[in-house]
Amino acid sequence: MADQQRADARRNYARILAVAEQEVAAHGADASLERIARVAGVGSATVRRHFPGRRALLEAVFRERIESLCARAAASADAADARAALLDWLGGLIEYAASGRGMAEALAQDRLVEPDQVSACAVKLEAAVGPLLRRAAQQGAVTSDVTPADLVTLVTGIALATEHHGDPAAEGRRLLDLTVRGVSPTG
Amino acid sequence: MADQQRADARRNYARILAVAEQEVAAHGADASLERIARVAGVGSATVRRHFPGRRALLEAVFRERIESLCARAAASADAADARAALLDWLGGLIEYAASGRGMAEALAQDRLVEPDQVSACAVKLEAAVGPLLRRAAQQGAVTSDVTPADLVTLVTGIALATEHHGDPAAEGRRLLDLTVRGVSPTG
Repeated sequence: MADQQRADARRNYARILAVAEQEVAAHGADASLERIARVAGVGSATVRRHFPGRRALLEAVFRERIESLCARAAASADAADARAALLDWLGGLIEYAASGRGMAEALAQDRLVEPDQVSACAVKLEAAVGPLLRRAAQQGAVTSDVTPADLVTLVTGIALATEHHGDPAAEGRRLLDLTVRGVSPTG
Repeated sequence: MADQQRADARRNYARILAVAEQEVAAHGADASLERIARVAGVGSATVRRHFPGRRALLEAVFRERIESLCARAAASADAADARAALLDWLGGLIEYAASGRGMAEALAQDRLVEPDQVSACAVKLEAAVGPLLRRAAQQGAVTSDVTPADLVTLVTGIALATEHHGDPAAEGRRLLDLTVRGVSPTG
């Protein structure tokens, strides 16, 4: 019976977190805890048992997305087409940055995430993309002097410069695609 | 005699503004009015006669740089190598954005520049680069679906993402160069 309760709690936690990710992506840091509970099909008390407040929920979503991006990079480390794997991962990063950026800023504004923690996230993402970038470079598909930090910085910049756009994720992907192809690759 | 005084005043204004641009580029919105007066070789009272305060000075520097970038675009509109002219102008824009961005934010924070005015600057810059971009595209040197707004947005993003770098202008130019060449132009 206790096992069953623990299994239920784990399932609820995972379901709440998945819904919270979608709601935060759609509404940023203003996502409603009540709406998350409703969509996840649990009571508000259950949400609050797992996430005592907005801060805990945003932190969990933030951490979850970083971990998910790192896992995604690891999973495609041996992909035959290293360029496709790298570009796919960068596409995931811009989507994250487009939705996660407002969240990161909201967290930072509330002094919930120290600047050090933001750097720690960048460091984790750079470490994750490193192997994908190296393989793509070995296959001759990437400009040789690009570093993992360059990629994370370029994507961050695109996300920052498009955050007031009507559809930041779509505009971000378009500008990322342009950055990948190059504004003027010939010359 | 009055003519001579007016000529002196114009020269002083131009000299103060030129020094202020350099000081703002080096120290951002914290540039010291006293130091500007000293380097320009005029008295503090002369600086204050032309620029009653930091706000007026920053606005003048901001406006001056935008106008200078627009004039630079117009001057190279007929350059034989349209790609070189475009890239040269983008290099000037990233330098401006690397130094001017902190200034724009300082102005915005002080509610000195309305968001509308910031947009107006972007619109002016897009209008200035439009002819350079069109000619470069006609010469087949630029990816065909790039818009003036894309260029200004990409440069703005690079400036935002590198503003805490040790040397934002150099790092910005490096990442702009990468964006021009493309992270992975083949594929």
